[in-house]
Amino acid sequence: MESIIREFNLNVDLAVEARDLVRGSGTREIPGVEEEIEEMENIKIHTITIKDDTGSKAMGRPPGIYVTIESPPLKINDPYVKEDIIQAMEKSMKILSEQYLRAGDTVLLVGLGNWRATADSLGPKFIQYSPITRHYHHYAPEALVEGMRPVCAIAPGVLGITGLETQEVIKGIVNNVQPALLVVVDALAAQNVDRIGNSIQMSNTGIQPGGGIGNMRHALNMETLGIPVIAVGCPTIVNASIIAQQAIKKYCLDTGMMYNDLKSLNSIKDILSYFGGSLAVTPKEIDDIIENSARIMSMGIARSLFPGISQEQLELYAN
Amino acid sequence: MESIIREFNLNVDLAVEARDLVRGSGTREIPGVEEEIEEMENIKIHTITIKDDTGSKAMGRPPGIYVTIESPPLKINDPYVKEDIIQAMEKSMKILSEQYLRAGDTVLLVGLGNWRATADSLGPKFIQYSPITRHYHHYAPEALVEGMRPVCAIAPGVLGITGLETQEVIKGIVNNVQPALLVVVDALAAQNVDRIGNSIQMSNTGIQPGGGIGNMRHALNMETLGIPVIAVGCPTIVNASIIAQQAIKKYCLDTGMMYNDLKSLNSIKDILSYFGGSLAVTPKEIDDIIENSARIMSMGIARSLFPGISQEQLELYAN
Amino acid sequence: MESIIREFNLNVDLAVEARDLVRGSGTREIPGVEEEIEEMENIKIHTITIKDDTGSKAMGRPPGIYVTIESPPLKINDPYVKEDIIQAMEKSMKILSEQYLRAGDTVLLVGLGNWRATADSLGPKFIQYSPITRHYHHYAPEALVEGMRPVCAIAPGVLGITGLETQEVIKGIVNNVQPALLVVVDALAAQNVDRIGNSIQMSNTGIQPGGGIGNMRHALNMETLGIPVIAVGCPTIVNASIIAQQAIKKYCLDTGMMYNDLKSLNSIKDILSYFGGSLAVTPKEIDDIIENSARIMSMGIARSLFPGISQEQLELYAN
Amino acid sequence: MESIIREFNLNVDLAVEARDLVRGSGTREIPGVEEEIEEMENIKIHTITIKDDTGSKAMGRPPGIYVTIESPPLKINDPYVKEDIIQAMEKSMKILSEQYLRAGDTVLLVGLGNWRATADSLGPKFIQYSPITRHYHHYAPEALVEGMRPVCAIAPGVLGITGLETQEVIKGIVNNVQPALLVVVDALAAQNVDRIGNSIQMSNTGIQPGGGIGNMRHALNMETLGIPVIAVGCPTIVNASIIAQQAIKKYCLDTGMMYNDLKSLNSIKDILSYFGGSLAVTPKEIDDIIENSARIMSMGIARSLFPGISQEQLELYAN
Repeated sequence: MESIIREFNLNVDLAVEARDLVRGSGTREIPGVEEEIEEMENIKIHTITIKDDTGSKAMGRPPGIYVTIESPPLKINDPYVKEDIIQAMEKSMKILSEQYLRAGDTVLLVGLGNWRATADSLGPKFIQYSPITRHYHHYAPEALVEGMRPVCAIAPGVLGITGLETQEVIKGIVNNVQPALLVVVDALAAQNVDRIGNSIQMSNTGIQPGGGIGNMRHALNMETLGIPVIAVGCPTIVNASIIAQQAIKKYCLDTGMMYNDLKSLNSIKDILSYFGGSLAVTPKEIDDIIENSARIMSMGIARSLFPGISQEQLELYAN
Repeated sequence: MESIIREFNLNVDLAVEARDLVRGSGTREIPGVEEEIEEMENIKIHTITIKDDTGSKAMGRPPGIYVTIESPPLKINDPYVKEDIIQAMEKSMKILSEQYLRAGDTVLLVGLGNWRATADSLGPKFIQYSPITRHYHHYAPEALVEGMRPVCAIAPGVLGITGLETQEVIKGIVNNVQPALLVVVDALAAQNVDRIGNSIQMSNTGIQPGGGIGNMRHALNMETLGIPVIAVGCPTIVNASIIAQQAIKKYCLDTGMMYNDLKSLNSIKDILSYFGGSLAVTPKEIDDIIENSARIMSMGIARSLFPGISQEQLELYAN
Repeated sequence: MESIIREFNLNVDLAVEARDLVRGSGTREIPGVEEEIEEMENIKIHTITIKDDTGSKAMGRPPGIYVTIESPPLKINDPYVKEDIIQAMEKSMKILSEQYLRAGDTVLLVGLGNWRATADSLGPKFIQYSPITRHYHHYAPEALVEGMRPVCAIAPGVLGITGLETQEVIKGIVNNVQPALLVVVDALAAQNVDRIGNSIQMSNTGIQPGGGIGNMRHALNMETLGIPVIAVGCPTIVNASIIAQQAIKKYCLDTGMMYNDLKSLNSIKDILSYFGGSLAVTPKEIDDIIENSARIMSMGIARSLFPGISQEQLELYAN
Repeated sequence: MESIIREFNLNVDLAVEARDLVRGSGTREIPGVEEEIEEMENIKIHTITIKDDTGSKAMGRPPGIYVTIESPPLKINDPYVKEDIIQAMEKSMKILSEQYLRAGDTVLLVGLGNWRATADSLGPKFIQYSPITRHYHHYAPEALVEGMRPVCAIAPGVLGITGLETQEVIKGIVNNVQPALLVVVDALAAQNVDRIGNSIQMSNTGIQPGGGIGNMRHALNMETLGIPVIAVGCPTIVNASIIAQQAIKKYCLDTGMMYNDLKSLNSIKDILSYFGGSLAVTPKEIDDIIENSARIMSMGIARSLFPGISQEQLELYAN
């Protein structure tokens, strides 16, 4: 699948999917990469740890911990499973952040994406539903519950609308506000439609454009911002070219024909023509999926940032 | 392509694409179907006339006139081509409606779809940008330009949100308001991504669910409503299963392998799994495409309904 | 206050405020009108019963029961008080509707107002958060919890945008769908800013334009629709002319000056000039107030329509 | 009117209204302040120049040029007057900015306010309709018309939602992007309902909180950002306390009674009670007024920033 990803300049945002791509059809271990799976009633938690440069090179992303919480009811805001997902996020966030974050430290939330384009509005919606407290510390400390830390947030918009790189916006805020931790939330691209609205990935590596190691100009991470960055995301689309390639591969497999990657790529380029790699595949229910996962993710993060504060109290500080 | 359309219960909304499906790779004439093409600088107008039951059966839609205006700049609201598209719509609308509509007759506009789901919001947005005048006739006739007919509009919502069939909502309004003509606007599904935001189809046959002849319970047409119904639409999505099938077919063609429709269908069902036929392919720019085509379509229809009234004046009556 | 209400064609939507206007500064009983007050920890329930024509004439609204649930935390979606308000609504709805509604009967919800104008979007938002089940009865009965009745809903829009009277839209739906009960929700105008986002009025009299008895052409009630209509509303605005008059009256009272109603009216007309009676006073937090009260009201109504179904289950059927 | 403004912590955003407050009922000249009026068919342009500290103290705002374009059709997006307003803005912007801005210089647009609260969404909507070009300079210079300068934009949100001061967001962007000029757009509060959607104020002094000289911590101006800042705004609300006071004053005047400012203030505080100074008066049409004025303002500013580029071309670069 490498060639189609390069051709259309696609992201492999999920570490669990990168692992599958590296492994191919086998199940061999990847050197420098460790994996752990925890299964509960409605939820499965994969933890992939990239331990060194060998693992990093193989997986196409920086060393660090990548936690993926899988739960199909995420997408429907199932009131019965919601609390389980929130608790799994709370626990994972603590593992990823506890070394950086002391009581009272300020946290900056960043919601990437475009609130006017549904499938890309997860980040801004996450911000909307997150409890924000930093201004109360300045102007009305009596309105805070004892022990609430300062949390602030921004949805910086996207390059095509602002003409600004995300880093150009965030770097200055980090300098002025001096948070101890940045949590950045974004909609992700998956390689498989089943992932849409079903997984939450959380990692302590920040965000690199293209999900890769490349260009530092646009990364949001410790190296570029000087503070630890936890990246959180949920898949909302699959690129249409991926679906097309999967179809061809599956058909070849099912019919015993030979699959040729380059020829497949050319056929796909022909049928996607004008819009090329910009075609996204989403379920009809995408608006609801975004809404529901944004609400659950905002509560999962909030519960970890405000330990001991109840869900009901937190909701009073959300917008 | 028939099997995939049946399997996933898809629509072939565009008559020009139904014609291509019927013809296959050939270019033979279809009995009972006539076609005419007019080419201008930025616009191509296809007029397909289904003349009898033979044509109707072949094309899978009722006898009548289907006009398709093709213009790639439609999707970007190109200020230079906009006026050309509006004039083409005005002219086509007149051909489709002039036998039914006299000066002063009331017209009801119906915008189908769900304004909260981007790719399905074309109908409601069309209503939003259309000049509405009927209430002025009752309450403030002095606010109307001489010769403006009564035009009213409704966006009835979708079954999944209202629990109501469209026909249940519209039938009563038609009875109470007694319009001479109904114009119904909806987002369409295409068989080809190039069609998205590039074509406007207008027909004098009304709307049938599935684009087909079947169930009259849900149709909006002369038979069910007792008044002529002009259907207007613009493609905003392609079903993901169509893309997958096109990819397999193209790959077989390009590599000289044999294409088997049933095996292809099974491979596709496997890769689309959970979401099945509900996966839509849209360009990343879909929000803008909807916005731009809704504005142009509302002006094209308005200019035909209010002959002699300038664009500037009409804009004053839009919401 | 009568003259200003006539002059600017204002509504006195709340029965409790109509009662205050009738009584003036006194506390005398109004012939033909009975009142009962129930006080709980966070909630006060006023029940005003207009028993005959004498009461109806005095109060400027038809005979019937008007329940007002007062609870200041309504506007902030306080998670601690929310359940109390929902239970108060459930109980009041039962008193108002139980004579009309048997298990399995269909209910039609109507959300009046304009979803694009914040202070007027309560009705459409109420619809959005209400569980809708009627289409499952037709297409997927297995997806329903045992005992769920068919509930459908529509937000018909406003005259200025559709060119249609609400009655013209609703009458036909009632004829086609044959519901046993209609529940209509609308944003209300109050006489006092303290009422905004603090009260819910529920009555078994339906809706009359101007809150009055007048013109039947636009009413939604038993007389015009042939089925019982329960009207539910929450105040979201006060007209600016009311504020202006209250200020003048209070100043006269505080300074011992004489208040002259006609002169006051003229002064007010001068300062409101161009926009006249169309000026609404709303708190800066109006968007949140609408959002929160719509959510609580949808759950209060839903709980009464689906007895025995849990909150969590109901949320799965909301959009 | 001073006492009510202090009591409720209100802004006098418009220089033309500050002048009226200073002058009272007289028409005397204000030392250190010059005024010029230009009248055209549909438009009146007031230019107030505060020349020194004496004028600054009297007017409660920094020395500089304040241009107010008055045109009642602004609020309805009248297609006949639109071009006149755009040209008046273009001309005024040039007077205010030409000393700072050379061909090719980068400009940063800042849209203040909250896009989720209608009356406060003018700034974010202005950004939405403005042509943005900076990213093309980096990634696709061939997509630009010859001579287009880099323009970028951000809507930083409001303190209550982000927990961030505007200056904390903007300062870093200015440091990273190094624009030659900042244009900041915001919704304004007027003292008079006639001003709503009827005036555009443009000044070369930047923005100070409270429209005053006070606290530099929150100002956006040359002093705090190190670059020239042009502030542009349109009145969208009047505070309810202002309306109340005007009503009392007018009534006293009309009836020959004595007006007492302190007593008036106390009466007003009583009637506004719970919501205090947060009550805003807006016309029912506020959503349309915001939409229309945002579109016109974005074009007026764009035409001045991109001289020689046609309206049609500019629209292709707006989002």
